Amino acid sequence: MSRILSGIQSSGQLHLGNYCGAIRQFLDLQAQGHEMFVFVATYHALTAMRDPLALRASCRQMVVDYLAFGLDPAQTSIYVQHDVPEVTELAWLLACVCPTSLMDKAVSYKDKVGKGFSANVGLYTYPILQAADILAPAADVVPVGKDQVQHIEITRDLAGRFNSEFNADVFKLPTHRLAPDAELLPGVDGEKMSKSYGNTIDPFMDEKPLRKRIMGIKTDSKQVNDVKDPQTCTIFRLFRAIAGVNDPRTRDLADKYLDPSKQGPDGFGYGHAKQALFDLVLTHFAEPRARRAGLMADQGYIDEVLKQGAAKARGAARITVDRARHAVGL
Amino acid sequence: MSRILSGIQSSGQLHLGNYCGAIRQFLDLQAQGHEMFVFVATYHALTAMRDPLALRASCRQMVVDYLAFGLDPAQTSIYVQHDVPEVTELAWLLACVCPTSLMDKAVSYKDKVGKGFSANVGLYTYPILQAADILAPAADVVPVGKDQVQHIEITRDLAGRFNSEFNADVFKLPTHRLAPDAELLPGVDGEKMSKSYGNTIDPFMDEKPLRKRIMGIKTDSKQVNDVKDPQTCTIFRLFRAIAGVNDPRTRDLADKYLDPSKQGPDGFGYGHAKQALFDLVLTHFAEPRARRAGLMADQGYIDEVLKQGAAKARGAARITVDRARHAVGL
Repeated sequence: MSRILSGIQSSGQLHLGNYCGAIRQFLDLQAQGHEMFVFVATYHALTAMRDPLALRASCRQMVVDYLAFGLDPAQTSIYVQHDVPEVTELAWLLACVCPTSLMDKAVSYKDKVGKGFSANVGLYTYPILQAADILAPAADVVPVGKDQVQHIEITRDLAGRFNSEFNADVFKLPTHRLAPDAELLPGVDGEKMSKSYGNTIDPFMDEKPLRKRIMGIKTDSKQVNDVKDPQTCTIFRLFRAIAGVNDPRTRDLADKYLDPSKQGPDGFGYGHAKQALFDLVLTHFAEPRARRAGLMADQGYIDEVLKQGAAKARGAARITVDRARHAVGL
Repeated sequence: MSRILSGIQSSGQLHLGNYCGAIRQFLDLQAQGHEMFVFVATYHALTAMRDPLALRASCRQMVVDYLAFGLDPAQTSIYVQHDVPEVTELAWLLACVCPTSLMDKAVSYKDKVGKGFSANVGLYTYPILQAADILAPAADVVPVGKDQVQHIEITRDLAGRFNSEFNADVFKLPTHRLAPDAELLPGVDGEKMSKSYGNTIDPFMDEKPLRKRIMGIKTDSKQVNDVKDPQTCTIFRLFRAIAGVNDPRTRDLADKYLDPSKQGPDGFGYGHAKQALFDLVLTHFAEPRARRAGLMADQGYIDEVLKQGAAKARGAARITVDRARHAVGL
């Protein structure tokens, strides 16, 4: 059994990208009996957020969502990042062994700045705080989406440099775990699905806006009877990500793309595919959607979950930070 | 009365540059009855140090030196930076409002990297942690040497940005205080005196190495009877910095530079000037040198001073960090 850690940035409700890239893996890993740490990355959110009320609300909402998806606090420590402020101290110690050239190579910073994000030092040093998040509880494994693999490499690099430069065996080098069928999930505009880009689909949306959102997915202009390429279609890629690549429903949908005229006189257009995706989301997330309603009404329970999660995470972080401080001479 | 803060990096014994640039001001300000916070910048030291034993020893030594110079723990809170880990959390919050362009403009980073220091992220973001050090106890005034004025401007900039971006009145903008006759003190090689450059003169050295150090000061090749320019001479500049620009001994030394042949058959050469500087250091620091010996023998007292200083500084930092957290939504 491994110690597994992951966090998601708290800048809004959880979306399908979070589910397919991370949460689904957590549920699998939890089912396998691993020890799990899952946190809401509130410090990281501040690289972009300037609305304290929205941050508080979204942080709370994410915890509710994690629980709704099926994380079990008895096995998974759920906490908010700022309840473990030790990570900021650890981040400083790691920053002192981190060449600026390593940060300059991080693609996610350049990508975000290219997308119009403010080029602040928080955003620039983001991978260092992320390394501290991972190393503080001495995580063995970090489940990630493809776009985060480089950050785990940076974490390993920093951990190794620290151990080597201070001639101490403080940090265990974590490994990443890419979901077998992991790919970047597209958002409604076909770009990577990300809260930052405003192109997400949220499985907890009410039915009406959810339907509208899915109906708004961008496609090419092929008509109902045209042969379509499922591999490059956002609708199909979303469907496949949720249902699974080997699911009969996925194979059936691919057939319809490739042979629309066999589907009857109406053929098979993107509108049909969108309806299929909408139905799939409602079916697939029926249980989480119901559970979430109950959780929303029990805030005392949420408080208790966070308190216990923070105590566990902070206790683990304290041990690591004390070892790191000793190693550097503090 | 103001709240005054300063720190010195703990990478070795205190030297004349620290004394003239900072400690002498602290003593003046303390005598004027201000509330003082003075700390050993251990986190900052880690941007360059990789020797835990040396860091621990030098940190301890600096506290002894501060006390030897005459800081009074009853009025001045003396502490080590890592006893107030809240500053690292505050530094993160400030990093999120700090444009990378602001760090790119900081001359001390470029200067240090140019001198061969490792270009690590700790060194690059140094001014942000420094801002946190200053803002945490809500200091009004920071006594600085000329080379640190830009960093106080950065601190004001970050404090103002934070207040404005989060629409909150969390930080008080500090001002710097340049000693009236402050100038960059030269080291034995004529460059800015700095531990980093290995060119310091330490007033607590034993007499023999102290004399050797002063006799090794680099000069031009003017002979005993040549007229010399005191303004460009490292020996004279050091003498003037310690004795004071208006001290009769300083004026007397300048006269000897300008008119060496009037000093008798031997003239007045750099060797004579060095001897005068050596005598001045011994006289000027007679009391601190004696006090230091007593302090070295009473480590329990040092522990107690640091404990009380940390409690005061940490209490003040806690208030600020809590306000900042509230403002951003943590």
